[in-house]
Amino acid sequence: MKVRVYYEDTDLGGIVYHSKYLNFCERARSEIFFSAGKSPIYQGYHFVVKEIVANFENPAFFGDILEVKTTLLELKNASFSLLQEIFKEEKRCFKMEVKLVCLKNGRPVKIPPYFLDLLQPLQN
Amino acid sequence: MKVRVYYEDTDLGGIVYHSKYLNFCERARSEIFFSAGKSPIYQGYHFVVKEIVANFENPAFFGDILEVKTTLLELKNASFSLLQEIFKEEKRCFKMEVKLVCLKNGRPVKIPPYFLDLLQPLQN
Amino acid sequence: MKVRVYYEDTDLGGIVYHSKYLNFCERARSEIFFSAGKSPIYQGYHFVVKEIVANFENPAFFGDILEVKTTLLELKNASFSLLQEIFKEEKRCFKMEVKLVCLKNGRPVKIPPYFLDLLQPLQN
Amino acid sequence: MKVRVYYEDTDLGGIVYHSKYLNFCERARSEIFFSAGKSPIYQGYHFVVKEIVANFENPAFFGDILEVKTTLLELKNASFSLLQEIFKEEKRCFKMEVKLVCLKNGRPVKIPPYFLDLLQPLQN
Repeated sequence: MKVRVYYEDTDLGGIVYHSKYLNFCERARSEIFFSAGKSPIYQGYHFVVKEIVANFENPAFFGDILEVKTTLLELKNASFSLLQEIFKEEKRCFKMEVKLVCLKNGRPVKIPPYFLDLLQPLQN
Repeated sequence: MKVRVYYEDTDLGGIVYHSKYLNFCERARSEIFFSAGKSPIYQGYHFVVKEIVANFENPAFFGDILEVKTTLLELKNASFSLLQEIFKEEKRCFKMEVKLVCLKNGRPVKIPPYFLDLLQPLQN
Repeated sequence: MKVRVYYEDTDLGGIVYHSKYLNFCERARSEIFFSAGKSPIYQGYHFVVKEIVANFENPAFFGDILEVKTTLLELKNASFSLLQEIFKEEKRCFKMEVKLVCLKNGRPVKIPPYFLDLLQPLQN
Repeated sequence: MKVRVYYEDTDLGGIVYHSKYLNFCERARSEIFFSAGKSPIYQGYHFVVKEIVANFENPAFFGDILEVKTTLLELKNASFSLLQEIFKEEKRCFKMEVKLVCLKNGRPVKIPPYFLDLLQPLQN
């Protein structure tokens, strides 16, 4: 998944505002579902971010085309963890490990097969 | 209502990103309700933005404290119009006329007294 | 130019937050330059938004793919005006007329040929 | 430092969009300087986010007033680490450890006294 850096993504330092990388990663996660003709929200099931460990390695700039790579680290009953990396050509700008929990009616639940079918192939 | 300009509000041009002024105005509209102990969402009634006429008059910068002034221009059955101006000390940075429509279940409806009580005093 | 609606673009009303349409339009304006191998910032020349007249016609939702269409309305020495419309399939969600001014060192200046070459073909 | 949750901070799930907590924390960091009559950008010195370890513990909702508490964890020559926690009344919604590096001309440099005077009192 590719992302262009626009004005709105930058701040007065001339680089991408730090929390925008989390937005780019969320877009990439949603796109896993959309690109398969599915939705990240299904019969009340959806995911929320629970933990993030992030490293900001190199700055990205206005006009840059970034690539988000997503790998499955761990798949549990009601949660899963991803490694998401953002590259500018060969150089890595950002990486994060993110844990997401599956919720329905506000409570953690077993991830339904609708989602599992898309998560399992993300394994490296 | 006062608003501080933070990193997230600026872009690489070093000034406030243009659409952020609309966000500042929306905060000021919501605060009309919150500061009176009410909510802009009430029994399914809420408002959506329908029209905007905006002028960007002077730039605002990181760290600036801006003041949003809100005046009622017109009050109709199912909609109302505001003049919202954003000042940096004496200087006006931004002004907009915004028309909002009251919705319930996705359809325009008569504005309930719960909201009217707060809108009428905004008249200049 | 196509834009996907992600989580970050929506609000608790379940629809696209109103000022995000301005961001989508800004992306489309920047992409005019990027897609031609140019940049919207050139030798200190750049554009700032001066006026907006916007109509919010139909809501857009999470997962929607929107299309931004941009037409040149008027081209002056130091400024130009665009019509930008956002469609969801055949239905128009948003339209705005936006006036942009060319600046260098903070002052309005004649639009350089570098930009003119890309603006003129936008005429309907 | 208190932060109100506005429309723009929520997503269609009805809760605060996850990366917005990072924005709230950044506002609190900037306010450390602003409230002392200083700026987070001084003679070319400024800070960039290097690492984040974040936990999303409880959701926050439209209209909530959140409080950001900031404590110094470690102060080094060219960097420092903070614990930032966001509370809704007594309940903690979010916590993160964030490492920031002091830059000048794009390179890590010794934190100048101008900043140190404000960081040291943040020690618990």
